[in-house]
Order: sequence, then C-alpha cells, then structure tokens
Amino acid sequence: MSRIYERVALIGLGLIAGSMALAMRRRGLAGEITGYARSEATRKTAAELGLVDRVCETASEAVQNADLVVLCVPVGAMGAVAAGIAPHLKKGATLSDVGSVKRVVIKAVAPHVPDGVHFIPAHPLAGTEKSGPTSGFAELFDNRWCLIVPDGETSPEAKEKLRQLWLGMGANVDEMDPDHHDLVLAVTSHVPHLIAYTMVGVADDLARVTNTEVVNFSATGFRDFTRIAASDPTMWRDVFLSNKDATLEILGRFTEELFTLQRAIRTGDGNQLYDYFTRTREIRRGIIEAGQDTDAANFGRNGGAK
Amino acid sequence: MSRIYERVALIGLGLIAGSMALAMRRRGLAGEITGYARSEATRKTAAELGLVDRVCETASEAVQNADLVVLCVPVGAMGAVAAGIAPHLKKGATLSDVGSVKRVVIKAVAPHVPDGVHFIPAHPLAGTEKSGPTSGFAELFDNRWCLIVPDGETSPEAKEKLRQLWLGMGANVDEMDPDHHDLVLAVTSHVPHLIAYTMVGVADDLARVTNTEVVNFSATGFRDFTRIAASDPTMWRDVFLSNKDATLEILGRFTEELFTLQRAIRTGDGNQLYDYFTRTREIRRGIIEAGQDTDAANFGRNGGAK
Repeated sequence: MSRIYERVALIGLGLIAGSMALAMRRRGLAGEITGYARSEATRKTAAELGLVDRVCETASEAVQNADLVVLCVPVGAMGAVAAGIAPHLKKGATLSDVGSVKRVVIKAVAPHVPDGVHFIPAHPLAGTEKSGPTSGFAELFDNRWCLIVPDGETSPEAKEKLRQLWLGMGANVDEMDPDHHDLVLAVTSHVPHLIAYTMVGVADDLARVTNTEVVNFSATGFRDFTRIAASDPTMWRDVFLSNKDATLEILGRFTEELFTLQRAIRTGDGNQLYDYFTRTREIRRGIIEAGQDTDAANFGRNGGAK
Repeated sequence: MSRIYERVALIGLGLIAGSMALAMRRRGLAGEITGYARSEATRKTAAELGLVDRVCETASEAVQNADLVVLCVPVGAMGAVAAGIAPHLKKGATLSDVGSVKRVVIKAVAPHVPDGVHFIPAHPLAGTEKSGPTSGFAELFDNRWCLIVPDGETSPEAKEKLRQLWLGMGANVDEMDPDHHDLVLAVTSHVPHLIAYTMVGVADDLARVTNTEVVNFSATGFRDFTRIAASDPTMWRDVFLSNKDATLEILGRFTEELFTLQRAIRTGDGNQLYDYFTRTREIRRGIIEAGQDTDAANFGRNGGAK
C-alpha cells in the first residue's frame, strides 16, 4: 500500500498511538510520523524505542506542517490539547482523535478548530488492558472496527483519506452519528468495564474471602473480569464522566435485568434461568463467526484446550 | 507416577469427566476407567473417542467393583444418581463428586452412602465454556486447584488417596469446609457468571443496538463476557438454585458497590472512580503472579500482542 499522508502527528504516545505508528509503518502509510506526550518519561521511552520518527518537546512543534493530527489522549484532556495546538495547525490539515466517547469530545474540540482544518472524530474499537508507550503493537487494529463519527458537514475527500488510513492499518471502517456511537459503546464497552471493576472491587473487599483464595481460585470465572479491571484508570474515569447519560441508561437496564434473575434464584424458578442461559449462547456464536473472538476454549489460554 | 486406583468409575461424561479420564491416562493413575452417561448420544460419542476404557449402559454396571466412583453430573442430579448406584457400591470404595456447590450436594448424596463407603466431596476449580464428551483435555487441571470438602469425619487414608489422584492429574489440592467453599465460589465464580449472563442478555435485548453492532463492536470489552455466558445452561441453572444464599449475599454486595460507583458517575466524582480503578489493578497482578492467568495482552488472543 502506498503513502496516504506526508506527515502525521500523534498527540499522546500510549497504547493506541504506539499501535498506530507501528501499523502505519508496517504498510508505509505515512511519510514522517511525529509524536508528543505530556510526560517526559513517556517521551524518553518513545524516543528510545523509535516508536515514531521524531519525538517533539511540545505539541505545537509536533503538529507543525502535519497533514493529519490525531489526538490520542484521555477524553477529558482533548479540549485543552486542541486549544493548545489550534494556532499551529496547517491549512487543509485533518484533525482527528481516538476517544472512546464522541459527543463530549466534539463539544470540547470543535470550537477550537480553525477555518480550513477538517475535524473528523474517529474511534478505533480495539485495545488491551495494557497502557503506556511500550504497550503498542502493529496488529492491534487488524480485523477490528474503526468508527468515523463526523461532526456535521465534512469534506468527503478528507474523510475518504482518513478512511483509507484506517483500512491501511488493518481495520474495518464504519460511520455513525455521535449519540448512537455513545449508546452502542455504553453497551459493548463502558458498562461491561464498570461491572468488571465493581466485581473485582467486591472480591477485594470481602475480608472473609482472603486475597489468596480469590487469587488462587480465580480460574472459575473471576480472572476474566480482572483483565478488564486492569485497564488504565485515567482513561476509564474520563469515559464514565463523559458518557454519563448513556452509561446510566444501560446500567439501569442492567440492574433491572439482574434483579429479574435474582428473583428467579430466590423463588427457585429454574426454567427462567435455563431459558436465559440458553439464549445468551447464541450471541457468542455470532461473535466468533464475525471473527471478533477466538473459538478456542478459555480464549486459547490453555495450551491443550479444544 | 504409579497407579492409585485399580478401577475408577465416572458417572457423567462431560467436560470434567472427559478431562479426568485423559489426565488419569496421561500418568497411568487408574487400572481401568469405566464411564456412564444418561444420554445415549453421549455414551456413543465417548465410546467412539475411547474416552474411557469401557462405556457402560447403566450407572450400576459402571460402578461395579470400582474403587473410586466420581459423580460428574449437574448438581441437581447428584442425589438421584447417588440413590441409584448406592446398592452397587463396593465395600471400602470411595465416592466423590465434582460439583460446583458443596453443601447441597452433601445434603443430597450423604443419606444414600452405604456403611463402609467413604464419601469425600471435591471440586476441581477448572473448566471452559465448552461442554459435552468432546470438550475434555488432559491439561485442564494443570496448576488449577482442587478443593476437597470432607463431610465431617473422613478416613484419612481414603482422603489421602483422593488427594494423590488430583495431584497426579496436575492439580494443586486444598481442603475447605462446605459453607466456606460455597461462599468463596459465589465470589470467584457464581456471581461473575450471573453478571456475565445478565450483561449479554441486556445487549441482546436492546433493539436500538442491533445484533450486528453488538457482535462487530464486541472487542471493546463485551466479548469477554460472552465466553462465560456461553457455559452449559443446565449446570449453571443448578448452581444458582443450589447456592442460593451465598449467591444472593454476594449479589447484594455487588449491587451496593455498583450503586456507589453509579452515584459517583452521576455526581461527577472523578477522584472516587480513579481510586477505585487503581485498586482493582493490584488483584490482577496477584493472579498473574500465582500462575492463574496469562500476562499476555487480551489473554494472548492477539498474535502480536505484548
């Protein structure tokens, strides 16, 4: 695949930015990749790893002459970062982001975007429980989805270029409006994370069940929750604060449903439980057929698993 | 390792029994392994696979002359199976089980155990989301824990032999009283499963979020829940009905905690969220250090993940 942008600037150098740099390099999608991170330690590590072509000391320096600038910082920091770089953006450049919530990011960033710069929000639906400049890898976006979430009128040419970049990094691309995006993500990501954090917190709290027991006996289900609950705290704090309405709505649906199952347990309604547990099997099959998860038992963690 | 029992009978031929047969054979721990399953299709598949040495047409035939009989059926079926085989158990034999709940199994099975037979309940903390006679593998118990949960006075010799068998099948062995077992498992397994089932059910219910979206965008967290929610419905119905008290107690703690976080989201208390999400990271580290999960990102599902 050939070059799509002459110069790309990544603001923030964590898991997503690092993976983008490696994925762009894998296919030669960018001429030069610059990068900036607020933390000096992160900039140093990124420079040592050669994660990007040039690590800059300021965000304004990084975005100089860039054709594409991607904000890869926690959702709560997007507005301030956009305000800082706005005067330094090149005329005709595209400004994008990778935030997990879109309505709030648009509200925070859009007012700072200068005339002649194309602001095209996006969200790659990929990640791991790891964070920081050493956690990225070129394959992160392969066969995952990237949602482009335009803020009203958008240049079709600029949008098509961004779409080509994400395709080139291995992703499938779809388009969605901000409110629907935030609701879908509340279901598929935000509420699952909150629930996992809660379950791990409960286990940690129970004095009668010592840490060692919870740890040693975690292979019975609990350990799956601890992976998600090991995700970056700053990122997730910002997600919940900025997708409040959709999260609370889906949480309401979740507790309603949980109480129904709780009542079935209390009253001993085995049929209701059985029917419910049968129905949920289907959706797993769909996910495996769509290539979004492995069919190997225990996610393939067991070597000999069938 | 040398032979521990001359003849072992497995009643039920699903994931756990199949894995036990393969794990015993791996080290030559049993002279002959017989097996029985209620379903003719299961018996046929097990016979074709050569899962055990001899598949029997009745449970009474399978337990004839067995030194160890292991009940590997759903918790709700244990009592009836025990009643059926009781007259056919050999004097001096050990009767054990692999049920995920212990108080209820003891209550259902103990009254049927003839004099001279050692009843020693146990629970291997291992499994996958797969079920049936083709789902077993010899490595399932490697470095997992098996809890022996004696019902009052127990022959030390018989208990030691059962312990040796589980060690030989690759497991670590610990001992616990039934009530504590049921509480610990409610935390590490039963409530996590119920929550996963609920979350998948909610996603399935939401008409505005089509199945395709939930499926395609599941890599953002949701897919982890679908694995657990693909577990055997009969087994899990029985677990919840027979560990009602501990499940409801831990569910109560869970919803209390969830409401606290929900309130923090509603009031915008970022510090509380951040602190909570930081604390839960620790417990994951403990699980990885204890060898109970992989440190690879996304459970190692991504080939190139760091």
